[in-house]
Amino acid sequence: MEPSERIENALQAAVARATAEPAPPQLAEAVRHAVFSGGARIRPRLCLTVAAACGDDAPELADAAATAIELMHCASLVHDDLPCFDDAATRRGQPSVHAAYGERLAVLTGDALIVHALETVSLQVAQAPQRAGALLTTVTRATGMPYGITAGQAWESEPEIPLAAYHQAKTGSLFAAATVAGATAAGAEHQADGWRLVGERLGEAYQVADDLRDAVSAEEELGKPAGQDSGQGLINAVSEHGLEGAKERLDRLVEEAVGAVPECAGAEQLRAGILEEMERALPKTLGRSAA
Amino acid sequence: MEPSERIENALQAAVARATAEPAPPQLAEAVRHAVFSGGARIRPRLCLTVAAACGDDAPELADAAATAIELMHCASLVHDDLPCFDDAATRRGQPSVHAAYGERLAVLTGDALIVHALETVSLQVAQAPQRAGALLTTVTRATGMPYGITAGQAWESEPEIPLAAYHQAKTGSLFAAATVAGATAAGAEHQADGWRLVGERLGEAYQVADDLRDAVSAEEELGKPAGQDSGQGLINAVSEHGLEGAKERLDRLVEEAVGAVPECAGAEQLRAGILEEMERALPKTLGRSAA
Repeated sequence: MEPSERIENALQAAVARATAEPAPPQLAEAVRHAVFSGGARIRPRLCLTVAAACGDDAPELADAAATAIELMHCASLVHDDLPCFDDAATRRGQPSVHAAYGERLAVLTGDALIVHALETVSLQVAQAPQRAGALLTTVTRATGMPYGITAGQAWESEPEIPLAAYHQAKTGSLFAAATVAGATAAGAEHQADGWRLVGERLGEAYQVADDLRDAVSAEEELGKPAGQDSGQGLINAVSEHGLEGAKERLDRLVEEAVGAVPECAGAEQLRAGILEEMERALPKTLGRSAA
Repeated sequence: MEPSERIENALQAAVARATAEPAPPQLAEAVRHAVFSGGARIRPRLCLTVAAACGDDAPELADAAATAIELMHCASLVHDDLPCFDDAATRRGQPSVHAAYGERLAVLTGDALIVHALETVSLQVAQAPQRAGALLTTVTRATGMPYGITAGQAWESEPEIPLAAYHQAKTGSLFAAATVAGATAAGAEHQADGWRLVGERLGEAYQVADDLRDAVSAEEELGKPAGQDSGQGLINAVSEHGLEGAKERLDRLVEEAVGAVPECAGAEQLRAGILEEMERALPKTLGRSAA
């Protein structure tokens, strides 16, 4: 099965569990809207790609890990879009969850997605306690405090922001979780440090690619109003390094990610896949200056 | 160690993990405020009481279960107090989290507490995979969809509210999780059905007791503005049955809870404990009409 098909099937199964009878109909709709409205699935794809490189000997565990990471990502977007944060009326060219279903259901949608992200992995504990336990720790570390997404987002409320910790927590943590979880699901937890580095560099690379897109893309291409991220002023690689400087930075991050890939059966294919994915992430008007 | 001391210690340990360096200072403060501002700890006490009745042969697991349940309860209160829900400026006589730290940090505090509730149990998977796996399922079921707190809260946004499912999801689910988790932590998962019934009846009993308090208490005694719960109009046992009717209903619920206690080493003591706790939950001006 293609990775993207695996991911959609696994997400459908998790969301079906959550939205089954007797779920309140509007909350169920809001959850489906949050998960199935055109996400690029970058993190779960990365997770499955790493699992494949490590042998993928427990695919249902890799699916659970990928699902958990994507549901956490969706939860963070729903809460980030709330009026008290980015106040975004649209997301991926469609109404944001709070715009479509109201603020109450948007708060609850995020809450439910966090619970069900971890539930998805919990359901694997009986079959594979050691790996599932490690996966749970990986996902909670990437999303809670002091290292995860909630901490990253909360730095924006501080008078002084330590930029490295902020970037790492807000974006890097879930990318690092994606690679570490992929490896862990396939029994390669002993290589977690290497995989964490790959994920961190790729997370930063996607952030720079995003800044490049913001700089060259018109609002309608992005599907969300440009310049509206609450952290926009803090982390823009283009405004900091210029367009060329940002492209060079991106190239270096991708090279470091490729260089950090631990030895495993599918290492070569994975390295090629990373370069391919990053080409896809770049705005069409920019080519990468090196490969 | 006294149950209440065990609970505070376990909560302190969980919150210390979450608020350790490099956590953003205000988020860390908000999380501590949410957890340590005078909660009655009814659910975790119930959890430990049931674990004790079942032998409590794995106290660290019972502590983790009690902690997870209380952190989930705290998370739900923080989000319930948000302007889009109850818009409560105070909670337990102190500023609510959003009043003290702003809406953004209140959203993130709830999110982080949900993550760390489940993390606390996840950390026990390596030592006790079977019981910890069952505990995770118990806690996610009680808090997610379609049966848990998020579903319960979301029913308030529906045009038609099925009252039984609503009450069960919003209040009963976490009480049921408290009793089931206490039993599961102590290896009595085979009695989960009986313990679930005990928890459900007690959850409803506390709700009725709360309505009785609302009816007889002045605003300053409650520590929150009276009549401000978003579900107030939907679930008030006093307005539905009158003061005497509500008291009779409370007595019946407590009797059913006591009657449902499964056979276990500490069953007698537990039954007595339930009656004692319910006396404590009642407003001082009302005595229970039967014991």
